[in-house]
This record gives sequence, C-alpha cells and structure tokens, in this order.
Amino acid sequence: MAVAVTSVAETCRQAKRAAGVLAQIDTAVKDRALEAIACALEQRLDEILQANELDMQLGREAEIGDALLDRLRLDGERVRAIARAVRQIAALADPVGEVIDGQRLPNGLDVRKVRVPLGVVAVVYEARPNVTIDAAALCLKSGNAIVLRGSSSAMHSNLALASIASEAAVEAGLPQGSVSLVAGGGRAELAELATQRDTVDLIIPRGGESLKEALQAVATVPVIYAASGNCHVYVDQGADLLQAEAIVLNAKTQRPGVCNAAETLLVHEAVAAQFLPRIASALGAAGVVMRADERSLALAADAEGVLLEPASAEDWDTEYLAPLIAVAVVGSVGEAIEHIARHGSGHSEAIVTRDTASARAFQLGVDAACVYVNASTRFTDGGEFGMGAEIGNSTQKLHARGPIGLRELCTFKYIVEGDGHVRA
Amino acid sequence: MAVAVTSVAETCRQAKRAAGVLAQIDTAVKDRALEAIACALEQRLDEILQANELDMQLGREAEIGDALLDRLRLDGERVRAIARAVRQIAALADPVGEVIDGQRLPNGLDVRKVRVPLGVVAVVYEARPNVTIDAAALCLKSGNAIVLRGSSSAMHSNLALASIASEAAVEAGLPQGSVSLVAGGGRAELAELATQRDTVDLIIPRGGESLKEALQAVATVPVIYAASGNCHVYVDQGADLLQAEAIVLNAKTQRPGVCNAAETLLVHEAVAAQFLPRIASALGAAGVVMRADERSLALAADAEGVLLEPASAEDWDTEYLAPLIAVAVVGSVGEAIEHIARHGSGHSEAIVTRDTASARAFQLGVDAACVYVNASTRFTDGGEFGMGAEIGNSTQKLHARGPIGLRELCTFKYIVEGDGHVRA
Repeated sequence: MAVAVTSVAETCRQAKRAAGVLAQIDTAVKDRALEAIACALEQRLDEILQANELDMQLGREAEIGDALLDRLRLDGERVRAIARAVRQIAALADPVGEVIDGQRLPNGLDVRKVRVPLGVVAVVYEARPNVTIDAAALCLKSGNAIVLRGSSSAMHSNLALASIASEAAVEAGLPQGSVSLVAGGGRAELAELATQRDTVDLIIPRGGESLKEALQAVATVPVIYAASGNCHVYVDQGADLLQAEAIVLNAKTQRPGVCNAAETLLVHEAVAAQFLPRIASALGAAGVVMRADERSLALAADAEGVLLEPASAEDWDTEYLAPLIAVAVVGSVGEAIEHIARHGSGHSEAIVTRDTASARAFQLGVDAACVYVNASTRFTDGGEFGMGAEIGNSTQKLHARGPIGLRELCTFKYIVEGDGHVRA
Repeated sequence: MAVAVTSVAETCRQAKRAAGVLAQIDTAVKDRALEAIACALEQRLDEILQANELDMQLGREAEIGDALLDRLRLDGERVRAIARAVRQIAALADPVGEVIDGQRLPNGLDVRKVRVPLGVVAVVYEARPNVTIDAAALCLKSGNAIVLRGSSSAMHSNLALASIASEAAVEAGLPQGSVSLVAGGGRAELAELATQRDTVDLIIPRGGESLKEALQAVATVPVIYAASGNCHVYVDQGADLLQAEAIVLNAKTQRPGVCNAAETLLVHEAVAAQFLPRIASALGAAGVVMRADERSLALAADAEGVLLEPASAEDWDTEYLAPLIAVAVVGSVGEAIEHIARHGSGHSEAIVTRDTASARAFQLGVDAACVYVNASTRFTDGGEFGMGAEIGNSTQKLHARGPIGLRELCTFKYIVEGDGHVRA
C-alpha cells in the first residue's frame, strides 16, 4: 500500500475537491463503492490482520492494558462484521436529494428545501479500528468526503483499513480524496485538523473527555460533541411496579458501559416503601451497588441481597458506566423533573407511570434528546430508531440532537425556480 | 422604569429559569403577550421617544455620523411599524410542538421527533433599536427566553424598549426573565455573555465584521454567524437576455446595501458580445459602475452611458454593498460554478438560462444557502420565503442555513412511548 505524505492542510484541500464531486454522484455509484469496500476488506484480510498484530505488539510492549488491547484487536470475525456493517449502510436510503420542504410562493416562485451533503467531515477517534470503516461508510453514503484521525496506538490498523477503503472507493468511481487518514495521532495534527475552516465543514470526536477538551481548546471548525449520558429512570406514583422493575434493571444492567445506560433511579415517595426493597434485591442479585440518599437507604436496608452505600453529593452528577446506581426518593414528578434539570446531561430520561398527567408533565418538562415513557433508556440508538447506523450521539441542541445518522451528516439548500422573477 | 442591576451571569440564570416555563406555555398565552407588547409600545410612545432623543443627542455630540444617526432615530411611525411587526409575528404558526417526524418501531415503540424551543437565545446587535423588539418577539413566539445586548450608542432606546416589552410580557402571563437586556455595550459584557455555556443555548450576532470577530475570539456558547453575501448572477449561453437584464438590474440595484444583492456578474462567452453592451448601458443608467475583466471590458467599452473600470483580483472577493458590480466572461456553466466556489460566500447564487442541463448543473454544483434559476437573488428573505420574519440569514451549514425564522430558533426532542419496553 502506498501512502502519500502530505500536510494536514493539503489532505483537507484534496478532501474538499473530492467533496465537490461526491455531492453530485448518484446513489447507485456510492452503493457500488461501499460494496467494493466490503469486498476488499474480506479479500485483504491478511493484510489487515498483519497491520493489527503490529499495533497489538506495540500495545503490549507499551503496556496499554487488557481493556485497550481488546478494543484494538481485530480478527477474521471482527473484520467480517465490519464488512457486513458497510453493506448495511449501503442498503440504507440515500439522504441526499430528499426534498425536506417545498412550496409555491404567492408570486409563483417554486421553493424546495433539499438535503445536500455537508462537504468534508473529519472524524477524530480513539482505539477501536472499526470506526475507520464505519465512519467512512456513513460519510460516503451521505455524499461527504471523510478525513480520519485515529489514535497512534491503532495507527497501523487504521492505515491498512483506510487505504483499502480509499483504493476500493476510487476503483469503483469515487474521486481520489474521498477517504483519507491523517497519519500521526499527536495533538499537533489534531490542532491543525481542527482549524481547517476553509475546507473542513464538521468535526465529530469519538472518544473520552480528554479528547473533547483537547478539541474544545483549539477547534475553529464546527464540532458536534457527544456529551456523556447521565441518564435517569423515574418511577412515578402511578407506575406499574413490575414494568418499573424490568425497565430499571434493563436500563442499568443490559450494558452498563454505554452512554444510554441509567445512572440514577428516582422513586416517588408514595411507592418508595413498596418498590425500593424489591428493586434493591433485584439490583443486588445483578451485582449492582445502590448509592442511596437518606430515605432510600432506610427503605432498602433490609432487602435481601442488597448492595448498599450512602450517596454523596457528587453521585448525582456521576456517569458511572459501571454496576453502580444513585438512588433518591422524590416528592412529585415536578421534583423528579427538577432533579433531572439540575443533574442530567440531556441524553436519555425515562418515566415509568400509568398516569397520563405525569407522563405529559415529564415529556414537556424534561429537556433531553430522548424522553421515554414506560421504556428503557437503552433504546437511544440510531439502529433502534430505524436510522440504520449512527456515528455518535449528540447531546447538543443545534443541528443534531440524539443519534447522528445519515441525515444528520447533511445540510440543505433552498432551490428556487422562477421565470424572470424580480423583487418589487 | 426600574432596572435591577445584576451581573450578566445572573441575568442569564434568570433567563434559563424563565425558559423552563416558556417552553411549556400555550400558544394563546404567548400570542396575548405579543399583543400586549405591541399595545404597550403604542401607549408608551412618549417614553420611548424621550429615551431615543437622549441617545440622538449623545450621538450628535459624539459625531457618530448621519448614517448611524438615521439608523438610531425613532419616531411615531417607526415605533408603530415595530408594533405592527410584533402583531405579524404573533399571527405566525407556533413552531413548538410540531411533530417533524414519527414512526412506530418494529418492537412497537412509538417515536415522535417534536420541535421544542432552544432555551435561552442571546442576540447581540448594533445601532438599530427596532432589533430589540423584533428579536424579542421572534424568541418569545418560539418559546425562548431572550437576552439582548445592544450597542452603547442605542442604550437608552434599547433599555426603554426592552423594559416595556418585559413588563408587558410579564403582565400577560410570561415568566419574569423572559426578556432581558445586558446593560453596558462594552466588550467585557460581550465576552461574559458569550461564555455562559451553562445557561445560554445560542448567540446570534447582528452587526458588522468587527462584532463577529470579537465574538469569534471569545465565544464558547454556540454562535450562528451570518456571513456576508458575495452573490453572483450567471447569464448562461441559453439565457433569455431580456430576463437576464431584468434580473441583473434587480439583483444589483433594487437595494444594493443588503446581503442578498448581487456583487458579481458572470456572462457566458457565447452571449457576451450581445449581452454586455446592453447590460452595461442599463447599469450605467442606474449609476452602477462595472469593474470588468479584460474580455468584458473590451465588449462593454462602447456601450452608451457605461460606467467602466478594470477589475483587480480583489474585486472577485468584495461585497461592495454599493453601486458597483464585478463582471467576468466565462467559458461554460462549469467555469461559472468554479468561480462561485472560489469566491462566493455561500449566500445566494443565480443562473439565468432556458437550458435544463445548465440549470441542473448549477443547482447541483453550487454550494450555497439559496440557488436561483431565472430569479433575482434578492428573494433570499424569511418574509419572501413565507417564514414570516427572520432574525438573520445564515451562511453556515450546521443547524440553520438561509433565513433564520421561528423554526430555526428551535431544536427538537425524541419522545418515545412504550408499555414496559426493554432492550433485548
């Protein structure tokens, strides 16, 4: 594989030229290119695994730890799963060209609001090499050129994957520069990439808080930050307590390490005496420790198998991503909404209730990307929402909120058609 | 009128509390509040004019110039026009609660994407005091609290207008803090306002480049910048030249000082010899000077009444906002698109043609908020587009592109309803 050594700025300029072409390419050509990428990944598996083994060796020598090594590791099955994901993205509807809105104005002008690609999207990510291909496939399908910047620990894997994708895409008819990788995972490259205002339209970081902070300090290009998920489940006075138990358990334990997992349980005081011992035993059996406020501590103390600790002030603001849950008793749905306004991160919030007034108050009053009634917070996901795939989850309010799928990788333009119309 | 002296941070916190209430207030209450504001402006006219006279006096003493003084000046008719604009905004459809999208997922979960207010919108503006009320009305109608920061030269006028609006709104049932004004037009207040990430959801600057640069240097709150409009009209080989003449004249001369006025004329070489002398005379008669490239210079030189100067390189990038137009001959629609990609600001671009292939190439190839076929660029306007009113025009690609109306002052949330749904 050949790697041209160019500056970050020149890579971005090439991406911008490619974007101008990509924006006008037919869906069928883009889909063929994605299929070509999927095939190339399968055919060039050995090359990918060799590159990955080099990263793994260097990782072991640098003692980066088992968790990171596992995230870094590729094998035949993992690469085939990446190829499958590319084919799934190819099968999604093309967002480009969708008419979002349209009308004939009183003066006869025809106005259409049409979805178009953003242009050049930069994706900055850590460890997992599969992001290289996932992100590239989403950007290409939505007509964007992509500039990737992975971490140095996955450099050889990322380079192999990006080169294979780029070559397959070009062979299938996409312009050179559609997929590129910024070699070098250092902060200097990050800063350079994050300030290419003339060529890069959006940066999406996928990584931890330190990556976000590094970007925040330097970026002049627009960034969509995926904030952390401090998600709550509120069990209302009017809750079906069997449902409540299932939802709390699912939201906390089905996959505790992800951003849509629940971190705090709020229980209405009218059902606390009945519900808390039950959920305490169930959570205890699942190995989850409750960090309880004074009232819930007392009510849960005698539950069979409970794992209980007193909560401190910072528990309400902590995204554990671990088998821990903060628990508080509240006096009303209004108090629950206030607690969430103070401590939530605007990601996913759930109420369990049979009472329409409580449900409505919660839906209206909670300011978050996704508000659930009688369902687990774990459903916040592009795949679950029928968007097919996502490149992240936004807790911002501008442009994209919630899952960032193909449509969110687009902007729009107004196309106005007349017959010699001038303004009076 | 009483003015509580609080810090910028405290003003923003009050606005955030108000926003929590405003987001849930019925349309009828918001509309009554806007009507109350319109009435109060009419009833308290003397107070407004007195405050304005004070600003005018100070302006004259500071020798700010006639143009600025005229922008600053209020009189009975201008205030009545502001009140009328408020009533027009009240009459618009409420964007809050609109269901943008929705579906039942395969697992039975009902997902709705619902429009909701952003929260707290800060509007930073220069001179014209009418912006105080226009911006407040748009924000209140869309369920947002507004924090205003005008220029020091209009301080007394803005304070009178904001106080009247705030008092009328609160009397009509909106929460205290729905409308507030940051007293003090200094850069320190601007920097403080632009860094209230916990409370302010969006800043919209309305003013010149120096204001934008000042914001860019300090803002951590999201900003929507309304870039300048370097707009082009391209007269294609297939153009109806009568239409072309009318459109170029309208785009350049109907109101030269605004962002959607044309600044450059591009003419296909096949019609240049026929079209340029004609448009040169028409523009000359309207007092417009052509800054022409070599080929158009030669073709227009003998036109009756032409005002002609040779173009220099910087003319292609200049937003004149004056009776000047840059002119170039191009060899194809592709060359026109390339010129626009290199020099345009992504605002409004027009092609005049009867040829469907040229029209399609231009629509697909030009990356701008508004792309016109056979119509003047002057139509880029919230009012013209049927959005009722606008708070500015965005040339960004994220969130809002083109006119920023009521919908663009909103975000959305996903509301998900189930019956005990958990993720498998």
